[in-house]
Amino acid sequence: MLKQADTLRKETVFERFGGKGELQITHFLEGDEFKAKGRLFAKNVLLPGASLGLHQHNGDFETYVILSGEGLLNDNGELKTVKAGDVIVTPNGEKHSIENTGSANLEFLALILFD
Amino acid sequence: MLKQADTLRKETVFERFGGKGELQITHFLEGDEFKAKGRLFAKNVLLPGASLGLHQHNGDFETYVILSGEGLLNDNGELKTVKAGDVIVTPNGEKHSIENTGSANLEFLALILFD
Repeated sequence: MLKQADTLRKETVFERFGGKGELQITHFLEGDEFKAKGRLFAKNVLLPGASLGLHQHNGDFETYVILSGEGLLNDNGELKTVKAGDVIVTPNGEKHSIENTGSANLEFLALILFD
Repeated sequence: MLKQADTLRKETVFERFGGKGELQITHFLEGDEFKAKGRLFAKNVLLPGASLGLHQHNGDFETYVILSGEGLLNDNGELKTVKAGDVIVTPNGEKHSIENTGSANLEFLALILFD
């Protein structure tokens, strides 16, 4: 099944998980399409200065893949810089946050699967 | 856990599934990291003129997300053109192939989860 780009569900969210500014989400898969294996497969875009606040994963784990831009990651308590091509895995029970520290958008994939 | 871009496993494969030319694969997740929910999360790059041949999914389903380039998709028997931002879902039991019909690389995400 082909889902053309302009038909995908898009959301704009502000101050997600207590973060700052604007987050744009484009959903690649929806509900039953996950076959009960997960609950999010999407592209996230954080505008310059925006962030997704620190939050814990319970019962699932999340993978981020940086597509473009520059960010500061809180990887379960450790601060790390991230760039295009980097992959961040946040296991069940751990926490993460990410902030756009560059002058361009910070674009990254987000995949949440159940654990 | 941060996996920096230059540490990810990369493969170069030729004539995948009876297709043509060169396919480059960069693996985002490995083995146990999938927590038994799937078996592939990767970026695929098909060089100009290259293709991934027609093949059937049995026991799993695959999602492609086109990142850049132009392609011709065989979506379980129907030929469709695809472009950046398009999402293709191939359910358990269905077939797909994809060919780079442009002059630049065709880059796309591939996610295989069990069904």
